[in-house]
Amino acid sequence: MRAAVFIEPHRIEITDRPDPVIAKPTDAIVRVVLASVCGSDLWFYRGQTAYERGRAVGHEFIGVVEEVGSKVGALARGDLVIAPFAYSDGTCPHCLAGITTSCVAGGFWAYDGMDGGQGEAVRVPFADATLVKIPGTGHSDEMMHSLLALSDVMGTGHHAAVSAGVKPGSAVAIVGDGAVGLCAVLAAARLGAARIIALSRNPDRQQLAREFGATDILAQRGEAASEAVLELTDGVGVDAAVECVGTGQSMTTAFAVARPGATVGYVGVPHGVEVPLNAMFFRNIGMRGGSAPVRTYIPELMVDVLAGRINPGRVFDFETDLNGIQDAYAAMDERRAIKSLVRVGAI
Amino acid sequence: MRAAVFIEPHRIEITDRPDPVIAKPTDAIVRVVLASVCGSDLWFYRGQTAYERGRAVGHEFIGVVEEVGSKVGALARGDLVIAPFAYSDGTCPHCLAGITTSCVAGGFWAYDGMDGGQGEAVRVPFADATLVKIPGTGHSDEMMHSLLALSDVMGTGHHAAVSAGVKPGSAVAIVGDGAVGLCAVLAAARLGAARIIALSRNPDRQQLAREFGATDILAQRGEAASEAVLELTDGVGVDAAVECVGTGQSMTTAFAVARPGATVGYVGVPHGVEVPLNAMFFRNIGMRGGSAPVRTYIPELMVDVLAGRINPGRVFDFETDLNGIQDAYAAMDERRAIKSLVRVGAI
Repeated sequence: MRAAVFIEPHRIEITDRPDPVIAKPTDAIVRVVLASVCGSDLWFYRGQTAYERGRAVGHEFIGVVEEVGSKVGALARGDLVIAPFAYSDGTCPHCLAGITTSCVAGGFWAYDGMDGGQGEAVRVPFADATLVKIPGTGHSDEMMHSLLALSDVMGTGHHAAVSAGVKPGSAVAIVGDGAVGLCAVLAAARLGAARIIALSRNPDRQQLAREFGATDILAQRGEAASEAVLELTDGVGVDAAVECVGTGQSMTTAFAVARPGATVGYVGVPHGVEVPLNAMFFRNIGMRGGSAPVRTYIPELMVDVLAGRINPGRVFDFETDLNGIQDAYAAMDERRAIKSLVRVGAI
Repeated sequence: MRAAVFIEPHRIEITDRPDPVIAKPTDAIVRVVLASVCGSDLWFYRGQTAYERGRAVGHEFIGVVEEVGSKVGALARGDLVIAPFAYSDGTCPHCLAGITTSCVAGGFWAYDGMDGGQGEAVRVPFADATLVKIPGTGHSDEMMHSLLALSDVMGTGHHAAVSAGVKPGSAVAIVGDGAVGLCAVLAAARLGAARIIALSRNPDRQQLAREFGATDILAQRGEAASEAVLELTDGVGVDAAVECVGTGQSMTTAFAVARPGATVGYVGVPHGVEVPLNAMFFRNIGMRGGSAPVRTYIPELMVDVLAGRINPGRVFDFETDLNGIQDAYAAMDERRAIKSLVRVGAI
């Protein structure tokens, strides 16, 4: 099969990889229909984290079940499915508690010899537990994009909002206007937040944030941004602060705008973050989040996607096919795109 | 009046201080009946934090209302009251949200010229909002000790348990066997925890932890303690980790024993703590707590104290009067006592 692999920083290529085969009776083989590039893929693309030459890439995809192992019961050939960015057995204590990313038998696409999502097919372990079947047929392109977004970015934005404790009526600040931050705006609106303050200075992203439910947009950065949020909230701060970047500055801003007793929900892998322990202690600001257990969230989010109530697929503003994989990365790296979608196969 | 003041490290003395008088119409003057020494008082006692010579000390007390300002409506001369360790106006956004320690007009005893709790009388600002009236008369010594514990230590242990998300049926680990840690055991039991693992190597404290509801006692420290907790929980970790010390080692232990998705509730002022950000992110461990908004908790805890359902006063194992104030500190400093009580005046 054809699949994208990492060659060296700033160079992703399509190569031939062995067709996946059923290795365990709980496996399924999924033919990929749509894949996407994650902001976290840019870490290895830019050479900021180590990545082996020739290793598969990609962890966001939806596709069609091609073949199932003898112990797969909930899925059949031809089913359209969403794959969360991690596979999980669905039966260990962590899966049962909803933290599927900590599954004792689970793992991640493109790690440990697993197929990547940016290729024609993927062997999926624990298929019954990992994959979520999409009901219906003949979904529009727009709907398919939103279903693809459930593979990672929307579930991650939702996790940030849930971790921050967003509730009906909450005043929320969202730090970060990338695809995850924009999905966090949508998630906060879906959870009933009354006021959603989005920090963004990019006109296109500001526009999408508004369409997703942001009530206030602030173009300031750093201390000026914190001051502006405090001004908007009569000096009190927000009920929930959502951090979707992972840098020291964005975390500092999130803690600065959180009101006493609030929680910073964060989903950006922390890089160069110093946790403000004194402020946390004396202002009772909590910190919560991490690698999103997207599998747990897909069913409830999919209901709203299929009903047309949320359309997270709008974060995709760049589209190509496998032959264009290099540009899918480059467009995000150069900030020409919020998020890139890769058409891989037909349904 | 006679009141304890700080002279120099390891030297607390009784001196004459001006009798407090009503300064604002919302003030009350409280004649102190019982006071106590807090673990956090040991920071200045040991010279580890700066403290001015001659400055008043103490922030835990119960007493009798001696006089009220013209705008005090809920209290009258003769009322027996609990003073939380911070005063608060009860009307600002943070008070209304329950985070009374962040009150915009509030403050702390023995700060900014305020009276300390270890003296014969205290001027209490915002008396209606700050003080909680104790119903009934003729309370036993044992009951009075438990009511005194509501001034800080029990509310703080409760805050740790609440911040960690202890729920009915939870498996909980409590790191720290000081008075706060022991009260956290009691709070976790009161909140319905099914399993309470207390870390302690002191026989007296182990015994009290058991009486307060600990189901398992572990004498190990550091990594051995973490491993023992994991072994007790089939490798899963606890649903809620409670940290009541504030050191790097105790925080490391708390994070190590928390299961994925759990929260570390902490109330010890962090000293030398490095937050394990990577573990937090990849295991979705939250961190929450801080300076306990004790005022918010007193009413519900007092109901259980008065009904005899909880007896946090049992943490007091050393008793003296104002003349013995130096030894009240020394006993805790030398770990001869879990917590010292100071009899100041008659009811």
